[in-house]
Amino acid sequence: MKKTSLADAACPIARALDLVGEWWSLLILREAFQGVRRFGEFERRLGIARNMLSTRLKKLTEAGLLERHPCTEDAREVDYRLTPMGRELGTVLIALAQWGQRWTAAEGGGPRFVNRHSGADLQPLQFVDADGQVLGLRDVAMLLEPALRQA
Amino acid sequence: MKKTSLADAACPIARALDLVGEWWSLLILREAFQGVRRFGEFERRLGIARNMLSTRLKKLTEAGLLERHPCTEDAREVDYRLTPMGRELGTVLIALAQWGQRWTAAEGGGPRFVNRHSGADLQPLQFVDADGQVLGLRDVAMLLEPALRQA
Repeated sequence: MKKTSLADAACPIARALDLVGEWWSLLILREAFQGVRRFGEFERRLGIARNMLSTRLKKLTEAGLLERHPCTEDAREVDYRLTPMGRELGTVLIALAQWGQRWTAAEGGGPRFVNRHSGADLQPLQFVDADGQVLGLRDVAMLLEPALRQA
Repeated sequence: MKKTSLADAACPIARALDLVGEWWSLLILREAFQGVRRFGEFERRLGIARNMLSTRLKKLTEAGLLERHPCTEDAREVDYRLTPMGRELGTVLIALAQWGQRWTAAEGGGPRFVNRHSGADLQPLQFVDADGQVLGLRDVAMLLEPALRQA
């Protein structure tokens, strides 16, 4: 089932989804945030089929979210490392995790996001405007340029 | 192509993706945030096939993100309105938009997120820990419980 491409959409939400708008990509990135770098480790931790994993890693690399590096410990292996572009998607993962934690049934704990220096838990992501005012989601409006209506 | 269900995964990212992990759902929610409520208007603005739209609206309603209400202006019509659960996904859309704005090629502007009272633009989402300390993404660590490794 071929989807329409959103790569050229005027809306950055649509363009972002074109790169990462499906499960495996975001779950692969979730693992990369934990420090996973090797094909075999992604495979084992995600229980994903090898051909599927290979396709997703290739797409994420081409899109600029991951980079291939020769593995320092074993020259026959390749490391997949997050680029700055990939790393910054962490905000989206945190937003998704906080929403999922709050609104979907949990079996047990979930991943915890903490201050890596002090171990203090992260609060829900905060909205602050250009004037420094802290806002609730209800105080935020999304304004679409008319041209975006097509995307 | 049937995907594995992630609905019961221990990880809230996985569970969240099970509900909204594909393009159309998030783009439908994007429209809902703009105040779109009617089937025909979603269809027109998204250029989505009617059967696809119908399936996605049904899934979003069953998942508890949208609610069907009789339309106040036309009794034959139905309004799809965001529930609190759906509305809170706004944080994820904003995170995606800010990332897409920064890292994907733009044709022109994008949607702007503003303080709806003053019109001031939103800053990038902010990380604050339980001690009130503002963090950069680099200061945030994701700790996974061992049990989550399977999800």
